Amino acid sequence: MKVYTIGGYEEVGRNMTAVEVDGEAVIFDMGFEMEEVINADGEVDQMTTNQTLETGAIPIDEVLYENDVEVKAIIIGHGHLDHVGAIPKLAGAYDAPIVCTPYTKKIVENNIEGDRKNIDNDVIGVEKGEDYSVSENLDLEFMHVNHSIPQATLSLLKTPEGGVVYGNDMKIDYSPVIEETTDIERLKSAGEEGVKLMIPGTTNVCDEGRCRSEKSVEQELEDVMNSCYANGGAVVMSTFSSQISRLNSIIDANNGRRRIAFVGRSLKEYTQAAEELGLIDLSEVEVVSYFDEVQDLMNRVSGNKDEWLIVATGNQGEPGAQMDKLATGQYPFDFEKGDHVIFSSRTIPTPPTEANRYNLEKKLKEKGVRVYPGVHTSGHAKKEDHRDFINHLQPDNIVPSHGTIQKLGDYVELARQEGYTLEDDVFIGENGRVIEIE
Amino acid sequence: MKVYTIGGYEEVGRNMTAVEVDGEAVIFDMGFEMEEVINADGEVDQMTTNQTLETGAIPIDEVLYENDVEVKAIIIGHGHLDHVGAIPKLAGAYDAPIVCTPYTKKIVENNIEGDRKNIDNDVIGVEKGEDYSVSENLDLEFMHVNHSIPQATLSLLKTPEGGVVYGNDMKIDYSPVIEETTDIERLKSAGEEGVKLMIPGTTNVCDEGRCRSEKSVEQELEDVMNSCYANGGAVVMSTFSSQISRLNSIIDANNGRRRIAFVGRSLKEYTQAAEELGLIDLSEVEVVSYFDEVQDLMNRVSGNKDEWLIVATGNQGEPGAQMDKLATGQYPFDFEKGDHVIFSSRTIPTPPTEANRYNLEKKLKEKGVRVYPGVHTSGHAKKEDHRDFINHLQPDNIVPSHGTIQKLGDYVELARQEGYTLEDDVFIGENGRVIEIE
Amino acid sequence: MKVYTIGGYEEVGRNMTAVEVDGEAVIFDMGFEMEEVINADGEVDQMTTNQTLETGAIPIDEVLYENDVEVKAIIIGHGHLDHVGAIPKLAGAYDAPIVCTPYTKKIVENNIEGDRKNIDNDVIGVEKGEDYSVSENLDLEFMHVNHSIPQATLSLLKTPEGGVVYGNDMKIDYSPVIEETTDIERLKSAGEEGVKLMIPGTTNVCDEGRCRSEKSVEQELEDVMNSCYANGGAVVMSTFSSQISRLNSIIDANNGRRRIAFVGRSLKEYTQAAEELGLIDLSEVEVVSYFDEVQDLMNRVSGNKDEWLIVATGNQGEPGAQMDKLATGQYPFDFEKGDHVIFSSRTIPTPPTEANRYNLEKKLKEKGVRVYPGVHTSGHAKKEDHRDFINHLQPDNIVPSHGTIQKLGDYVELARQEGYTLEDDVFIGENGRVIEIE
Amino acid sequence: MKVYTIGGYEEVGRNMTAVEVDGEAVIFDMGFEMEEVINADGEVDQMTTNQTLETGAIPIDEVLYENDVEVKAIIIGHGHLDHVGAIPKLAGAYDAPIVCTPYTKKIVENNIEGDRKNIDNDVIGVEKGEDYSVSENLDLEFMHVNHSIPQATLSLLKTPEGGVVYGNDMKIDYSPVIEETTDIERLKSAGEEGVKLMIPGTTNVCDEGRCRSEKSVEQELEDVMNSCYANGGAVVMSTFSSQISRLNSIIDANNGRRRIAFVGRSLKEYTQAAEELGLIDLSEVEVVSYFDEVQDLMNRVSGNKDEWLIVATGNQGEPGAQMDKLATGQYPFDFEKGDHVIFSSRTIPTPPTEANRYNLEKKLKEKGVRVYPGVHTSGHAKKEDHRDFINHLQPDNIVPSHGTIQKLGDYVELARQEGYTLEDDVFIGENGRVIEIE
Repeated sequence: MKVYTIGGYEEVGRNMTAVEVDGEAVIFDMGFEMEEVINADGEVDQMTTNQTLETGAIPIDEVLYENDVEVKAIIIGHGHLDHVGAIPKLAGAYDAPIVCTPYTKKIVENNIEGDRKNIDNDVIGVEKGEDYSVSENLDLEFMHVNHSIPQATLSLLKTPEGGVVYGNDMKIDYSPVIEETTDIERLKSAGEEGVKLMIPGTTNVCDEGRCRSEKSVEQELEDVMNSCYANGGAVVMSTFSSQISRLNSIIDANNGRRRIAFVGRSLKEYTQAAEELGLIDLSEVEVVSYFDEVQDLMNRVSGNKDEWLIVATGNQGEPGAQMDKLATGQYPFDFEKGDHVIFSSRTIPTPPTEANRYNLEKKLKEKGVRVYPGVHTSGHAKKEDHRDFINHLQPDNIVPSHGTIQKLGDYVELARQEGYTLEDDVFIGENGRVIEIE
Repeated sequence: MKVYTIGGYEEVGRNMTAVEVDGEAVIFDMGFEMEEVINADGEVDQMTTNQTLETGAIPIDEVLYENDVEVKAIIIGHGHLDHVGAIPKLAGAYDAPIVCTPYTKKIVENNIEGDRKNIDNDVIGVEKGEDYSVSENLDLEFMHVNHSIPQATLSLLKTPEGGVVYGNDMKIDYSPVIEETTDIERLKSAGEEGVKLMIPGTTNVCDEGRCRSEKSVEQELEDVMNSCYANGGAVVMSTFSSQISRLNSIIDANNGRRRIAFVGRSLKEYTQAAEELGLIDLSEVEVVSYFDEVQDLMNRVSGNKDEWLIVATGNQGEPGAQMDKLATGQYPFDFEKGDHVIFSSRTIPTPPTEANRYNLEKKLKEKGVRVYPGVHTSGHAKKEDHRDFINHLQPDNIVPSHGTIQKLGDYVELARQEGYTLEDDVFIGENGRVIEIE
Repeated sequence: MKVYTIGGYEEVGRNMTAVEVDGEAVIFDMGFEMEEVINADGEVDQMTTNQTLETGAIPIDEVLYENDVEVKAIIIGHGHLDHVGAIPKLAGAYDAPIVCTPYTKKIVENNIEGDRKNIDNDVIGVEKGEDYSVSENLDLEFMHVNHSIPQATLSLLKTPEGGVVYGNDMKIDYSPVIEETTDIERLKSAGEEGVKLMIPGTTNVCDEGRCRSEKSVEQELEDVMNSCYANGGAVVMSTFSSQISRLNSIIDANNGRRRIAFVGRSLKEYTQAAEELGLIDLSEVEVVSYFDEVQDLMNRVSGNKDEWLIVATGNQGEPGAQMDKLATGQYPFDFEKGDHVIFSSRTIPTPPTEANRYNLEKKLKEKGVRVYPGVHTSGHAKKEDHRDFINHLQPDNIVPSHGTIQKLGDYVELARQEGYTLEDDVFIGENGRVIEIE
Repeated sequence: MKVYTIGGYEEVGRNMTAVEVDGEAVIFDMGFEMEEVINADGEVDQMTTNQTLETGAIPIDEVLYENDVEVKAIIIGHGHLDHVGAIPKLAGAYDAPIVCTPYTKKIVENNIEGDRKNIDNDVIGVEKGEDYSVSENLDLEFMHVNHSIPQATLSLLKTPEGGVVYGNDMKIDYSPVIEETTDIERLKSAGEEGVKLMIPGTTNVCDEGRCRSEKSVEQELEDVMNSCYANGGAVVMSTFSSQISRLNSIIDANNGRRRIAFVGRSLKEYTQAAEELGLIDLSEVEVVSYFDEVQDLMNRVSGNKDEWLIVATGNQGEPGAQMDKLATGQYPFDFEKGDHVIFSSRTIPTPPTEANRYNLEKKLKEKGVRVYPGVHTSGHAKKEDHRDFINHLQPDNIVPSHGTIQKLGDYVELARQEGYTLEDDVFIGENGRVIEIE
C-alpha cells in the first residue's frame, strides 16, 4: 500500500491524499489553501490550473502523474473549501467520479457549475453506511462523524490489505444539535474488521481534553440572546455559513420571538442546500443575498430593530462581507449605542484576519455596539477525542494530516503514548512524499 | 459620604471597604490575600493580628482608627476566603455585629470557632430581600446575585443620602443550576430608588462579552463524564469546594450511574453547611475527610474503579491536598492507563500555583491518566454583564474594587463608555485612601 | 498650580498637557494619535480642525477655552509626530510662540509649511541649558535627555511655586552613539532647586530593568551586517526615519565597505534637517525620494547588489512605503534567494500594523530573502530608568502621561514604591481632566 | 551508515547519538535530562544505572546493545550537563575512551571522580584542529564553534563514506569575548571535502535572525553595572557558572572598581578549571564555596556594600542556591532598599523554574532591591545562523537533534527552504530509532 501525501502536510489547507493498493488508487479530498486564495484577491476563479498551482492555493498533484497512478475515485469527506475548493482546477484531469455524501454533493456541484465544460466527472452521492463499489477490489463506506458542517464523514476504504480510514476534520460531539453522535459502534466494528491505515487530521490535537458539544454552545447562545432581547436593540449575529447546526441553534434559541433574516450569498447557498435535505427549516427565515434585497430588508429592519434577528456573513471581518457593510453604513441601517453583535465563531489566527476583525470590532464599538465574541465550539477533535479514534479503530498504521510539520508532530506525540513508533507505524508526511506501508 | 478603600485596591484579595454616612460607618468584607497566606505556610492561624498584618495577608485597617470611624456593622457579601478570611484577626476589635446571609453565616462561624475568646461579635444571618436595621439611619438589604458560592449578595445599604451598593464578586447567570438568576428587577428598582454609590469588583471586566452560564458548563460536564463512563476506568474530579452549584451538576450528571464520594476537609465543610440549608442533597454521597476514612474508601474503590466517581480537593495541585495524595500513591489506590481526571476549575495564574498544577498533571500523565482540564465557567461578570449592572443600578458614583490599579483602570474604561468621568464620579481607590463623595 | 491633562491620558499618542500658575499657562506638546491618522487614510491634511477633532486624531483642547486659560507658550519636547503632529491644526488659535530645540524647530517648520496662512505662531529654537523667558514669572530650560530622535528634552519650567518638569518620551542611554548621556547632574541639581511637579511618560514603565544602550545595538547591527556582507547579496535595511542615531550607527558599521543610499521621503526630510545641524554626515550617502530618483538608483543597484547598502522607509510594512515597493517589484530590482533585509525597528503591536508587516515579510521570504528583525532598542525608559528620574528629580507631585489608564497605573505602582500616594501626590489624568496641585 | 538517535530526540536534554560506519561506531554525548534530574531530588548520584534509566533522566541506550554495536569512542562536544551528565551512569559499560577538548575533559573528570571504580574509560583531551585517530578507518577533528561554555566543538568524524558533523549546541558569535568566532573557513573546507551527514541542534531554530554577540551583551552589562555603581549600594549578579565568557565580561566591565567575589560550588568548579587553561584570570577574584567561607565573606561585605561586586550561583531561583540564601537572610547580609541584583541569564521556561525565580524576585523586591533581569544572549544559533551552517557544510543528509518533535520539525522547515526533503535527506529522529543513510 502506498500513501501519496500531496497537500495539507505542510500547511493547514489544500488537503489531498491518495492511497494506492495493487495498482489502483483513490484520491481523498481536493482542497484550497485559503490564505493563498485570499492573497490572490479572488482571482483564482479566472486562473488556469497551472497559474493556480503557482500561487500555492491548490495541491500540487504531479506526484500522481510521475508515478502513473491509476485513480479510480475522488472521495470527498465533507464540503469545506479546504477539502473541495480545488476540484474545479484538478478533478477534470482524472477519469474518475467524485464520490461524497448528498450534502457534500450539492456543494461540489455548486462549485463546479461554471466549469462544467472542463470537468465532466460524475458526482455521486452516497449515503452513510451504504457501500459504494470503487472497483472490483475496492469498496467505500462513509462512516458517520461530527464536524462543523452536515454529513461529514470518516471514509472507510475497504481493500484487500485491510481498511483505510481517512478523515481529517472530525470530532465526537456527545450532545449534537442536528445529526447523531459520531458512530462509535461502527468505528469499533471497523477496528475489529481490521484497519491497516488511518489518516486523521491534527487541528486541535495539542489541546487537552475534549471538544465541547454543540448543545453546550446552544445553551450559551440562548443565554446571550436572552440577555440581548431583555435589554432590547438590534441583534446581529454572524457565524460560519456552512455551520448548519449552529444556525439551527440560533433559530431554536430565538424560539419565534423575533423575525429572522439570513443575509449574504454563502449563507444562502449553504442553507438552501441544507433545507433541500431536511437539515434546516427555513420556513420562518427570510434569506437574502443581492444588494437590493438586503437594502430592502434593512429598510424594514431600521425602524423596528427590536423585531428582528439578523444573521449576516463576514464573521472574520472580511472587507466587503455583509458584517462589514452593515458596520460601515452601506445599507439604510445604523448601529447605535446599545445594539448587539454576537460572533458565534472564532477568529482565524493569522495577522491579516486578525486585522480585519479588529477593524470591524473597532467600528462597531465606536458606535456603542455591545460585542459578544467567541460563542462557539470547534469542529475538531481535541487530544482525548483523538485518543478515542485511535483506541476504537486500532489502526496498524497512522499518517496524520492537515497541518504543519509541528502539528503532525503533536499527533505523533499522542500516537507514541498509544504505542506507535515513528516511521515504523506512524509517519510524518510532506507534500509530494510517497510512503510505503507494509 | 466617605469611602475608606482599605484592602483589595492594590491586589486581588484581602477585600475590605468602609462607607461612612453622617458619622456612622459599615465595613464591607474582611478577607485574606491568599498568596500571602500561602507564603506564610499555613501559620497564619498561629499568628497575632499584628504579625499577620506584617505579612500582607490581611487588610490594614488603621485608617479607620486614625479617623475615629464608628463602625455599626460588618457586612459580609459571601463566604469566600478573600472576603471572610480576616474576620478572626480583625473583627474582634470592632463593637459591631457581623451581618451576612445564612450560608455565609455558617462559613463565618466555622472560621471563628477557635477564636471565640477574642471575637465576641454577633453573627447575624439575614435572608435576601429582608431589611436589617443597622442603625436608626441605616438599613441593609441583601439583593440576590449569582457567584460561584451559594447565597452571594449585592449588599444594598440604604442611607439618608441614597443607596450604597457593594458587591465585588458577582455575575449574571442566565441559566443557573441552583438558585435563581441575579434579581435584575430588584436591581432596576433599586436604581430607580436612587443609588448614590456602587462598589463593584473588577475581576473579569476586561473580558469581552458575558460570563457563560452554569447550565452550559453542566452540559459540558455531562458530555465529558459520559465519555469517561463509556470508556471505563477510574473517574476522579476536582473543583472548588465552595462551588456547591458545580457539585450539584456533578451529582445530576452522574444520575445514579456511579457511587459518589467527596474527599477532603474543605469539601466536607462547605457541602455540609450547604446541605443544612437544602442547597445540596448528600444522601447518596459518601463524604470523607480524615486520612483513615479516605484510606478505607480507596480500599473499596481500588478493585471497583468503574463503580465510583471520586470528587477530591486539590484542583490547584496544592501539595498535600487530596488530588496530590491520590496522584502520589499515598492511599491504597493506583492510577493506571486509561483512568480519567476531570478538573472542573481553572488554574489561578500565579507561577507557584501553575507549578503545582504542572507537577500534579505530570504525575498523572506519566501513569497514562487522561486529563480533562478547564470544564468550568467563572463566577465573575464579564464586560457586558458589568455594563448591565451599571445600566440597571444607574449609580451616581462608582468606586471599582478588588484588583490591581490596572484592573481598576479597566473598569474605569468601561465606566467612561457609560458616561462617567475619573475623579468626578468614578474613582480609583488605593489601600488606605479616603474618598469623599459629594 | 493647575494641570490640564488634555491628550495622551487615555491612549498612546496625541500628547498635550497644559500647566497653569498664577493665571499664566504653557502648553506642552500637540501631537497626533497615529492609529486614527492612519484610519483617516492620510486625509487629515485636507481636514479642518473640527473635522480632525472628530476623528480622535488630535487632542481635544476645549478645556482650555472653557477655563479661559491664558497660554503664554507652546513647548515642544521633541520632534515625533505624536508630539508635534497636531500643531498645524491647533497652534494657530493660540497667541503664543512655539518653543523647542533647533532640531525640533526644523521638524515643526516642515510640518506647518503648507499651513502658514493659518498658523502665524513664532517658532523659537532654544539650545539645551539656556534659559528662555516665557513671561515675567515663568522661565524655561531644556534639560538634556536621550530618546530615539535628536535633541529630545526634559522641559523644566521654572515657576514661582517651583519647577515643573515635563518629558514624556525619554530614557537614560549610558552609551549613546550621538549626543551625550542624559544630563543626570542637571537633573539632580534641578531636584535640589525644587521640583513641584513632574509629568513623565509611561511607555515602558512596566518592563523590568533598564533600556539597552544604542552602543549595544550598534554592536549587534555591525555583527549582522558583517554576516550579510560575508555571505554576499543585496542588503536592505529599514529603521525609523527620525532615528538619526541609528542611521549614524549604520553608516559607521558599514565603514565604507558598501555605497549607501537612503530611500524615501521621510528619510530625506529627517536626515537633511539633521545634517544641517551636524548630527549626521551624509557626504557619502545618496539620498533619494522621488519615484524617478529611486528608479534610477535601483537600476544601478540591480546588477551590483554586492556594492550597495540600501536603507529604505517602511519598516512597519506600510503599503506604498519604499520597503513594500521594493518587495513587490515596483522598481527595476528583484529580491532573490540569499538577499538580506534587516529591520532595525520593532513592529508596533496593533493588529493592522502586524498584518502589514506580516504581509511584507511573507513576500520577502517567498523570494528566499533572509530576514533579520528586531535589531533595535527602545527610546523609552524602563522601570529602573524611571525610578532614577524620580530619585534624581525628587518631585513633590507626579502626573504620569502618555498611555492608557492601565499604563498610568503601572507608573503609579512604581511611584508607590518610592513613597507616593494616589491622588495625594501622584495623580491619574484623563483627557480633559483638571488637576489642582497644592 | 547508520544513525542511532538515542536521546534528545523527544526532549531538550539527555543527548546521545551513535553513528556506525562499516561495523564501527562512535557515540556523541551522554547527557542528563535536567528536569528529571531535579525531580529526582538530587538523588541521581545515589541511584544505580537501571534506577536512573527508569526516571527518564538519562538516555536509554539499549538499542546499541540490541544491535551489537561496536563502540570505538565516546565523543563529547562540550561540558554542559545535558551532554556529559550521564557519563558516570553509562560510559563504564563501553570499552571505549571518552574524547573531548581539554576544558571539557576537566569537567568530565570532575563528574566521574567519585565513580572511578565503575568507570575506567580513558578521558582523552584533544585540541581543536588536531586529528585524533578513533580507529584505522575513523578520524576525529574538533572544529571550533561558539557556545556558552569554553571549548565547545563541532565534531567532525572522518569516515570512508565522508564526513559526519555532530554539534548540537553551537552558534556563530561575530564578536566573541573570549576565543575566536566560529571557524567558518574550516566549515567551508570541510564542506568541500564532503559531509555526508550533519547532526545539528535545534534549540532556537524557530527564532528569526541571528544570535546576538557576547560583545553586545558585554556593552549592555557594562551599562547596567555603571548605572548601579553610580547609584551605589550592594551589587549582586548571577549567571550560569559555566558561562566563562560572561564572567570575563563582568570582570572587565568592573574594571577594578569594586572587589569581586564568586560565591558557590559550581562557580568555583567551572572557573577554576577555566583558570587552569588560561581562559579566565581569577587573580583579583575571591572564590568561595563552603558555608563558612561565604559567611566570612558576607561579614566583610556587609558594612562595605559599595566596595563589593558579588557573583552568586542560583540565577534560576533554585531553593538552596546562593542567591536564595542571600535573599532569605541566611548569611550576615541584608538586602535593603536601593541594592541591585543583575541576572545575566534567562529563566528556563518550565513552570517549576518560573515559580522558583518568581519567588526569589518577590523576596528581593519586597526588600526594595532593584532587579535587572535578562542581560543575556543565548548560546544557540538562530534561524539565519543555522542556515549558514547548512550552506557552509553542504551536508548530503541532516538529522536534527536536541528537541521535541515539534522543534525537530522547525528545523525540517528550514532544511526544506534549503532544498532538503523529509525522509530522503533530512530525517526526524526518535529516541531509539535507527536511521540508515545511503
